[in-house]
Amino acid sequence: MMLDNPAAKYRPFVAVDLPDRQWPNRRIEQPPIWTSVDLRDGNQSLIDPMDQERKQRLFDLLVKIGFKEIEVGFPSASQTDYDFVRSLIEENRIPEDVTIQVLTQARDHLIDRTFEALKGVKSAIVHVYNATDPMFRRVVFGVDKPQCIQIAVDATTRIKQRMEEAPETNWTFQYSPELFTTTEMDFAKEIVEAVMDTFGASAEKPMIVNLPATVEVGTPNNYADQIEWFCRNIKNREALIVSVHPHNDRGTGVAAAEMTLMAGADRVEGTLFGNGERTGNVDLVTLAMNMYTQGVRPGLDFSNITPIMREVEYCNQLPVHPRHPYVGDLVFTAFSGSHQDAIKKGMAERRANPDATWDVPYLPIDPLDVGRSYEAVIRVNSQSGKGGVSYLLEQEHGIELPRRLSIEFSQVVQEVADRTGKEITSQMIYLAFCDEYLEQTSPFGLVSHRLSSEPDSPTVTLEATIEEHGERRTIQGQGNGPLAAFIRAMAAAGHDVEIIDYHEHSRGQGSDAEAIAYVEVRIDGESVFGVGTDESITSASIKGVMSAINRKLSTQAPAANVTAESLAVAK
Amino acid sequence: MMLDNPAAKYRPFVAVDLPDRQWPNRRIEQPPIWTSVDLRDGNQSLIDPMDQERKQRLFDLLVKIGFKEIEVGFPSASQTDYDFVRSLIEENRIPEDVTIQVLTQARDHLIDRTFEALKGVKSAIVHVYNATDPMFRRVVFGVDKPQCIQIAVDATTRIKQRMEEAPETNWTFQYSPELFTTTEMDFAKEIVEAVMDTFGASAEKPMIVNLPATVEVGTPNNYADQIEWFCRNIKNREALIVSVHPHNDRGTGVAAAEMTLMAGADRVEGTLFGNGERTGNVDLVTLAMNMYTQGVRPGLDFSNITPIMREVEYCNQLPVHPRHPYVGDLVFTAFSGSHQDAIKKGMAERRANPDATWDVPYLPIDPLDVGRSYEAVIRVNSQSGKGGVSYLLEQEHGIELPRRLSIEFSQVVQEVADRTGKEITSQMIYLAFCDEYLEQTSPFGLVSHRLSSEPDSPTVTLEATIEEHGERRTIQGQGNGPLAAFIRAMAAAGHDVEIIDYHEHSRGQGSDAEAIAYVEVRIDGESVFGVGTDESITSASIKGVMSAINRKLSTQAPAANVTAESLAVAK
Repeated sequence: MMLDNPAAKYRPFVAVDLPDRQWPNRRIEQPPIWTSVDLRDGNQSLIDPMDQERKQRLFDLLVKIGFKEIEVGFPSASQTDYDFVRSLIEENRIPEDVTIQVLTQARDHLIDRTFEALKGVKSAIVHVYNATDPMFRRVVFGVDKPQCIQIAVDATTRIKQRMEEAPETNWTFQYSPELFTTTEMDFAKEIVEAVMDTFGASAEKPMIVNLPATVEVGTPNNYADQIEWFCRNIKNREALIVSVHPHNDRGTGVAAAEMTLMAGADRVEGTLFGNGERTGNVDLVTLAMNMYTQGVRPGLDFSNITPIMREVEYCNQLPVHPRHPYVGDLVFTAFSGSHQDAIKKGMAERRANPDATWDVPYLPIDPLDVGRSYEAVIRVNSQSGKGGVSYLLEQEHGIELPRRLSIEFSQVVQEVADRTGKEITSQMIYLAFCDEYLEQTSPFGLVSHRLSSEPDSPTVTLEATIEEHGERRTIQGQGNGPLAAFIRAMAAAGHDVEIIDYHEHSRGQGSDAEAIAYVEVRIDGESVFGVGTDESITSASIKGVMSAINRKLSTQAPAANVTAESLAVAK
Repeated sequence: MMLDNPAAKYRPFVAVDLPDRQWPNRRIEQPPIWTSVDLRDGNQSLIDPMDQERKQRLFDLLVKIGFKEIEVGFPSASQTDYDFVRSLIEENRIPEDVTIQVLTQARDHLIDRTFEALKGVKSAIVHVYNATDPMFRRVVFGVDKPQCIQIAVDATTRIKQRMEEAPETNWTFQYSPELFTTTEMDFAKEIVEAVMDTFGASAEKPMIVNLPATVEVGTPNNYADQIEWFCRNIKNREALIVSVHPHNDRGTGVAAAEMTLMAGADRVEGTLFGNGERTGNVDLVTLAMNMYTQGVRPGLDFSNITPIMREVEYCNQLPVHPRHPYVGDLVFTAFSGSHQDAIKKGMAERRANPDATWDVPYLPIDPLDVGRSYEAVIRVNSQSGKGGVSYLLEQEHGIELPRRLSIEFSQVVQEVADRTGKEITSQMIYLAFCDEYLEQTSPFGLVSHRLSSEPDSPTVTLEATIEEHGERRTIQGQGNGPLAAFIRAMAAAGHDVEIIDYHEHSRGQGSDAEAIAYVEVRIDGESVFGVGTDESITSASIKGVMSAINRKLSTQAPAANVTAESLAVAK
């Protein structure tokens, strides 16, 4: 239960005192060094962590987008990560200009294992961290400040030594004081300086210091103050590449990244669309595109953003939200008439003056720049799009379309909308559905059918009276179920049909209940859907098959010939 | 295609020059006036705008959460909104301490229609806007600055007059210079002052000035600078309630709200979970909970956040993302062993010292405060949770669980996990599914069945040989389909079962294909699921019903008595 007085349980975040901060006077004028941690921080927080195939696909995507630094895993902690790093190296999958990064804890055997994983790599960043946050020191690890520093210094010494033993690799060293934002600033400075000294960092041989907001605990300006304070107070700033790693627990990860860049950070670690532990890491797509809209070339290519989103959704098995900046399904749509009107005028103005800077109402970016288009959405009786149509059929008519059928049917509705040019109502959608599927009763129609089976035999015999082009005939077949028997009966009558997929469910309850069957069949090598309803589950499925056959035949034959004529006959 | 040099197409956002800004030195120490625009800005951008029922549900939810100001629509532009406002007033659905707000364009007949909609209301905010952004003035409306001011002043005059004509209502006036952030600051000040003068705003009779970031075009510190500049430069600041309305086009809406509050705003307009045009409005849940974690009582109640999320998802027909701060399905989970270990230690420390302020690793808030719990997620063969289990059954076994069954079955898996205490594998999940549903073959088992029907009759006769506690018997029933006939046959045999829901689909293709039927039945007033598979669609559904009956009976009877005994007999 939420507390009436949370002040007793939660304390306000106290950042560093920096009244003469300079960052609010600055703007971002060049992109940072981009580092993707999708394959590490992102992957470790997935419900369904990536297998090798998905890891490789995501790695290839990151390379294609333009990332030059990619954290690929935690090889000393995970065999899957170890194997993936080895496959990248041994199968030569890392482009010349790309550096892989691996994370390790500050423990000797894990560092050694990490270097084993990296054997033979051309260029790599070894990223070591230890917890410097006072609560972690006290509760989780039971170390005091000197012990905490010693852990970092010892790890640095060992890493430096392992690097020197493999001079053929182009090594970069990275250190993270963990939970930087909740570490005392002077202690963060002290431990980083000890690490720098141990490693021998210099302007010629800089190291990366990563200052993570492992958990986002304050407003983004607090994080920016800390970064500016650190950059101003650390000795030998020129020996450092200052990196930030914002998380999103307060929903302000992107703002935090922007402000820490203004405050002096050189590099950002984040993920595509903000996957990562809990609420995620900073979303590098939004961050890069935000720069783009300010005239700054981000150096990452999101010019065809939808396939990137789909690929990431596949790899992460997590959705991107329909309102996600720059990419969500709804972000380039206008539903309101006044918005649509303003956009129309702005677009016309732009056509008249195509070299002017972009300034179109309600569109902070030209959708074409990310491979999208502006959509003035047709209201389908206050609904629209595929989701709307399916939702409406389900809510109002108890019809739960299987996914592939839902996609097929949305095109039918779109056609109706285009043809009639008016607002599509719920009733129009249902009628279109009936027209397209349920009322496909010619050339074939089911008059009646009769089932029989013998005890202890799995075989069912079906005898059906059907109409074909208005003429009645009886067909018969046997199978291990009524649907199979019907398919055999049709085959015997010269009509080869194969069932690809079949869904059936009840509609309504009690005495009004009936079954609705969605059947996908293959006829002459082509797949076609049919839908049937009936009080009987067998009749519904047989009608579904007939609906599919009729649809197939009616699209093949000239419409005027078969459809109209046989409709007349069938009635 | 993304441009190599976006500087030619996009210009950087230039905010106001305010080198002596004070807001970065402040923190948020009290909540703002919260105004929900879910029913207006949120609703108008939905794929599927709310009907009256959903509007009413969302309104009631907003009241319950604690909103005292709720924008309920645009009654002059939409009949649905008009009707909703009328129903709120006429059916006395607005609590005494809640004020409704309505939006109107600055046009006489729309203002009049707005006041018609509000007739008889006890307390209302009339919110008028006009476009002050230079591009809108030029391209969309073709007005110069004096004409633009005249529109605002005329509207204010008319609204003031209409208010005076209905003194029984407690009126508040609100004006928005539209696209405030892209309006020249001095012009924004000029037009607001003209409106204030016309209305006669004073410290005793303040008005609301809403300064929207209708489209988010710059970093949040820019918006904060503008708000601080405005508050410092507007004449008669004490006559104003300064309101902000941040959008989220750059993914920084929450940060913008926080910084504008530090910069002097008194009031925030936003929505639950950030629904709204394009990328959405600022998310008031995150904003409120961010304050809460800093010890500030927000005055909005999210102490049981999951049902709130579900209700909003229902009303908006849009999902909340699994990584959404404070509420997403994944935000209180820890997948990594080291995180789990640190949390465990932090929780133990807290138990030892329960009055200390909250400081648990990786959990910025006590999950219990929002009615959630921390979950150390069990990896289910690198998968976990409900989605994982369903996903796995579908991917590996072609089993597509209906949603309610999926929820039921996830509890079965959780039990197995708790009991075995080890990592759950994909194989274990499948076996648990077979155990729980498919292999429920006692006390009732289907030996064989026989169907018959007469031509031209919808009636099916089913004769089934079943085993009951190991003894064979034959039952018979008639119905309009085989499932209905079976239910009748069971009823005749003394077992009343009612079908609540039924789903069936094919698994596999070609000669391996079989049907799987999920049946939800009601027995003795209780709902229970059963699942059956068979080559025949009728046999699968009959087996599904039997599985349900067997499950019901085996949980009722003492396990040792019925289950073990009859299992032995049935084999």
